[in-house]
Amino acid sequence: MQAYVYGSKRELPEGFEDYVSRKNTAVISIDMHEGHLADTPDCPCPTPRARDIVEPLNKFHRAARALGVPIIHIRSVLRKGGVDDINGIPSAWRRTFPLYVGDIPNADEHAIEGTRWTNFVTEVAEGDLIVETKKRLSAFYPTDLDFLLRNMRIETVIFDGGFTDCCVLNSSFDASNHNYRVVVLRDLVRGTNDEMEDAALKIVSLHLGLVMDSADLLAAWRT
Amino acid sequence: MQAYVYGSKRELPEGFEDYVSRKNTAVISIDMHEGHLADTPDCPCPTPRARDIVEPLNKFHRAARALGVPIIHIRSVLRKGGVDDINGIPSAWRRTFPLYVGDIPNADEHAIEGTRWTNFVTEVAEGDLIVETKKRLSAFYPTDLDFLLRNMRIETVIFDGGFTDCCVLNSSFDASNHNYRVVVLRDLVRGTNDEMEDAALKIVSLHLGLVMDSADLLAAWRT
Amino acid sequence: MQAYVYGSKRELPEGFEDYVSRKNTAVISIDMHEGHLADTPDCPCPTPRARDIVEPLNKFHRAARALGVPIIHIRSVLRKGGVDDINGIPSAWRRTFPLYVGDIPNADEHAIEGTRWTNFVTEVAEGDLIVETKKRLSAFYPTDLDFLLRNMRIETVIFDGGFTDCCVLNSSFDASNHNYRVVVLRDLVRGTNDEMEDAALKIVSLHLGLVMDSADLLAAWRT
Amino acid sequence: MQAYVYGSKRELPEGFEDYVSRKNTAVISIDMHEGHLADTPDCPCPTPRARDIVEPLNKFHRAARALGVPIIHIRSVLRKGGVDDINGIPSAWRRTFPLYVGDIPNADEHAIEGTRWTNFVTEVAEGDLIVETKKRLSAFYPTDLDFLLRNMRIETVIFDGGFTDCCVLNSSFDASNHNYRVVVLRDLVRGTNDEMEDAALKIVSLHLGLVMDSADLLAAWRT
Repeated sequence: MQAYVYGSKRELPEGFEDYVSRKNTAVISIDMHEGHLADTPDCPCPTPRARDIVEPLNKFHRAARALGVPIIHIRSVLRKGGVDDINGIPSAWRRTFPLYVGDIPNADEHAIEGTRWTNFVTEVAEGDLIVETKKRLSAFYPTDLDFLLRNMRIETVIFDGGFTDCCVLNSSFDASNHNYRVVVLRDLVRGTNDEMEDAALKIVSLHLGLVMDSADLLAAWRT
Repeated sequence: MQAYVYGSKRELPEGFEDYVSRKNTAVISIDMHEGHLADTPDCPCPTPRARDIVEPLNKFHRAARALGVPIIHIRSVLRKGGVDDINGIPSAWRRTFPLYVGDIPNADEHAIEGTRWTNFVTEVAEGDLIVETKKRLSAFYPTDLDFLLRNMRIETVIFDGGFTDCCVLNSSFDASNHNYRVVVLRDLVRGTNDEMEDAALKIVSLHLGLVMDSADLLAAWRT
Repeated sequence: MQAYVYGSKRELPEGFEDYVSRKNTAVISIDMHEGHLADTPDCPCPTPRARDIVEPLNKFHRAARALGVPIIHIRSVLRKGGVDDINGIPSAWRRTFPLYVGDIPNADEHAIEGTRWTNFVTEVAEGDLIVETKKRLSAFYPTDLDFLLRNMRIETVIFDGGFTDCCVLNSSFDASNHNYRVVVLRDLVRGTNDEMEDAALKIVSLHLGLVMDSADLLAAWRT
Repeated sequence: MQAYVYGSKRELPEGFEDYVSRKNTAVISIDMHEGHLADTPDCPCPTPRARDIVEPLNKFHRAARALGVPIIHIRSVLRKGGVDDINGIPSAWRRTFPLYVGDIPNADEHAIEGTRWTNFVTEVAEGDLIVETKKRLSAFYPTDLDFLLRNMRIETVIFDGGFTDCCVLNSSFDASNHNYRVVVLRDLVRGTNDEMEDAALKIVSLHLGLVMDSADLLAAWRT
């Protein structure tokens, strides 16, 4: 069983079997919606690097479903009128991220309910689960994800999806604090840039859980 | 007003005044206790880099107090017998961090109530506040920190202290999600190594809040 | 200013003005949907007493809106397939309430997303807000209500709607713990029976907030 | 197996075995401290009715320990200076309860850390657990109780202790929402008066869990 420890792929010693058990495990796919992934100038919060993983994600999710592992899709949805963000207490990223990337033209439309920006671009199959009151960075806050996982008696969560150094990292912190075993799939997450992706995965590997390739996880699930 | 944007110190545009207002602001100092900082072989979770900031932290806290800004000291405290960690559901770091740094000899004693490992090494003054049910990585979980901040009507939190890429970063995510304005003091936090410190501060600057030097924050507070 | 103290309507002394200020106040209307209120044999969780307050509620909400007080409608919504209730860890009421009232024929359909049972029977106006991940008894858990109220800078909540001795009482406990001022409108809530309604309102009046008639609250708001 | 359904003791049908399994069960004893129970004029929040259950509680706890069921003692502890209550956002009960019982002379001292008012009057044995950041009415908020129970893999909670219609009822709502099975021990809780005790136990029996006599629970545990 192999995982990335501080960026280097290594054979792990014994004692990590609970991370790669299919039992009590769910895949959590974060924010793979048009608001991040649309390849149009009005995309309100573009994460173009994540477009490359749409098909690989679909493929991995199909394999997981075939093995009986449930898929939970997370999406950010904000109320019309901005009451829970731009006209309430604005998200920090709206203020800080433009200092680095410059103005984000259509950012006010990000995640607004009833717009195309909340449509998933990855496949959502019959039987998949959706959590959609994410309003900031964590998949857990303020959502019913922890409640759902407890009802499902989940103990291990597998993260894939968008913004390795932001929502994926934050969700990994939360999942770890809530005593779930955390696996982040190195080939199925994307972040701000190479440096931040690499750094976020190192942080996960040090403090939060395992960083694995999806092929290795599938292989472990199948044995 | 200057802050570090993705590692580069820059003059910020207008619009960040609420981050450097003394009003409704608290300093939150994370895990500056002997369990991380004791310079002895039995230190259960050593973060030796943070020893360098003990005196600078004391000095900054004195200046903050003089300006009427409250100081909240956070410490991890675990129950005797290990029921809420090693004999319950063990913290992820206990399993993953040794993959990188090797065996941590006395880790089982980390944060146990009634031991010297929970003693603060920084000064705690009359009137300072203490939050001490932190049991994993975030200062917010499972603690009464958010409850306390709401009672104090705090809107901006200033983080200093231990493990830039771990507890400080996690607490910054949580504070940001809970709609507090977040400032992390670049010269008054320490992490696993140079690379992780730098990366964690970049993540904060992109998504979570401002990364500032303490001298600049004090200067802003004084004007 | 008058309120019910342990069942008796009395003039209150000074010091309760923040409870009846329109400023930073929201009305929270709980579970006025067909799943409780439909007058058909397949109603999955009937609370017939609450049918009497549909029109009075609409009237009060119109008056509140005219005064600029926002209305937040709460509804329970459970996922198809029962993963977060009957096929997960079943709600306690599903097991205990039938001991008192007998079998509830269509209870499995209660609150299932996509069914008519989640339709509101009270008016929802443009500009009203909806919170709909309530899955057990409290309007706060596991929902984004607290997050929403903080973004709106709400300090006082006015409860009306269904099951005085259950969801209204539970939500009043939670709101009080979260440091909101709580008002329950005696004429605009209904419970299991006269005895439980009376008892729940007494409990609110002792420990949690004010029990008022809606006409008195409107009068206070208008002065 | 017998329990009180809306005030009447009855034989339950099959299907409630998980409520009376010793496995994954903990006893949670609420606020049996001098701040409520001291028989002196300066008792800051007197609940004199609960003095009668101190010895019965001790006896029940001894029997539970002998059967391997852990005891968790909850106590309210507030910071000196009143920052998290009277000088922050005051607890609702401080404002409403005096409307019914009149002025409470020493209420400002209630639960202040370092005073005698936080001393337990019931026995705390080696191996018992303590949760002590309760600051309002629920044993769960803002405390680490849920975190502790999850680490202990507890699924059923048995409540005893103080204020049937207040902290015990609130904690029962929270435990039920968090998907624990709830048992309240009718003979080992006390409330404001006979009427409120009776009402709160009826509410528990309808919506939240089982109301049992401690002797019946012990008998079930022993079979």
